[in-house]
Amino acid sequence: MPDIETRLAALEQRLRDAEDRLAIYQLIASYGPAVDSLDGAAVSGLWTEDGVYDTQSRPFRGRADIAGIVNTALHRSYVERGCGHVMSLPQITIDGDKAVATGYSNVFTGEGGHWRVERTSSNRWELVRTRQGWRVKHRLNRLLDGTIGPREILARGVQSHPIQETE
Amino acid sequence: MPDIETRLAALEQRLRDAEDRLAIYQLIASYGPAVDSLDGAAVSGLWTEDGVYDTQSRPFRGRADIAGIVNTALHRSYVERGCGHVMSLPQITIDGDKAVATGYSNVFTGEGGHWRVERTSSNRWELVRTRQGWRVKHRLNRLLDGTIGPREILARGVQSHPIQETE
Amino acid sequence: MPDIETRLAALEQRLRDAEDRLAIYQLIASYGPAVDSLDGAAVSGLWTEDGVYDTQSRPFRGRADIAGIVNTALHRSYVERGCGHVMSLPQITIDGDKAVATGYSNVFTGEGGHWRVERTSSNRWELVRTRQGWRVKHRLNRLLDGTIGPREILARGVQSHPIQETE
Repeated sequence: MPDIETRLAALEQRLRDAEDRLAIYQLIASYGPAVDSLDGAAVSGLWTEDGVYDTQSRPFRGRADIAGIVNTALHRSYVERGCGHVMSLPQITIDGDKAVATGYSNVFTGEGGHWRVERTSSNRWELVRTRQGWRVKHRLNRLLDGTIGPREILARGVQSHPIQETE
Repeated sequence: MPDIETRLAALEQRLRDAEDRLAIYQLIASYGPAVDSLDGAAVSGLWTEDGVYDTQSRPFRGRADIAGIVNTALHRSYVERGCGHVMSLPQITIDGDKAVATGYSNVFTGEGGHWRVERTSSNRWELVRTRQGWRVKHRLNRLLDGTIGPREILARGVQSHPIQETE
Repeated sequence: MPDIETRLAALEQRLRDAEDRLAIYQLIASYGPAVDSLDGAAVSGLWTEDGVYDTQSRPFRGRADIAGIVNTALHRSYVERGCGHVMSLPQITIDGDKAVATGYSNVFTGEGGHWRVERTSSNRWELVRTRQGWRVKHRLNRLLDGTIGPREILARGVQSHPIQETE
């Protein structure tokens, strides 16, 4: 049986990893409510000051640019019809103060009493631990339209997230 | 280095928070299977005895009323066509024995060999810790139909869930 | 106040449970990126060597068979149109080195600039802890088409996952 100091140190390290995963779930789950309530500051606050959100239409660079996403004509038209940006449960791999998450995002928009799947995308989130907690350094988002690029985001995810015990 | 007692107490508190988050994920993930298998008792058992489920059509008040959701004509018609109530990964903020969760719910129903997005809603879950574990005190659910009310549920979520380290 | 040994042992056991839940989330979140990037080895590596994936069309038995899923004409047609296999946040119950998870899966496929809900299914994942971490022993997947069978997967989930405190 290891001594008390060893066991405490192991617990502290393992718990830190679990907390990191839960904090990253929380971060990713925060994108939808922020963007769908047109809160540009809340959206951009998920990123680092110099973070990048590389979308299908163009890369948004830095918090001021990212905050402006809620004012684009496309996004406004979604919100006027009724809009939910739903992120999937992501795969996460943590390496010290950096992490990568891979997952899907769906945008559902209103369409005459029902909703349609406006977008289905693959996402790679590159995250960093800051003094304020985990933030997005770079998010890559591409529509799963049958071309190779969006699938490669998923393929990189497979490489980034080896399936093994978390401890 | 803090002493052993201090480290143990910190670990116990931090682990409690992580467990609470996982228990709330589990609670919210339990709604769909309960309602889609027409198990009214399992649905209402997620709420406190005096809990409220405030839906688009009307508020359901207390467990007996909530259990009856599975017998409404609308819900029965969904289940007959094939139905999945899918909750998104929620944002969660815990404050002692209370918690708030914010997220989306989608209802997918069968439509001639494929499925359609019957409903896309915003949700605010107000939760309490009971002797039996976390339960729903109040769930507010509104269709994201382009009006302001459903978006305000998401805006309240942004205010309720500040993005910061969980520890 | 319990003694230090008792508190350490309790922390170790509780943390193990939290880690198991997070590892199972990660495993289930890994299915989509593997199958949608046509990586048969990554798909089958989620299962045990003798694992079974019992789908609507037929059971796939063992890793070699399961890996072949990415080469079926149906799956290839999905990927060519653009495809996302999105797993829901699952319910999980752990019993030592075994676990059961219940949840939904949606397949979204491209359709002329938008996406459609190609499939909405119920899933029962029977998992085992191996030396390499949690793996799928048996996954049962059925389309929620209004018939009783797929709903019974959800009803079994309700029985498998009693709602109570995780600790």
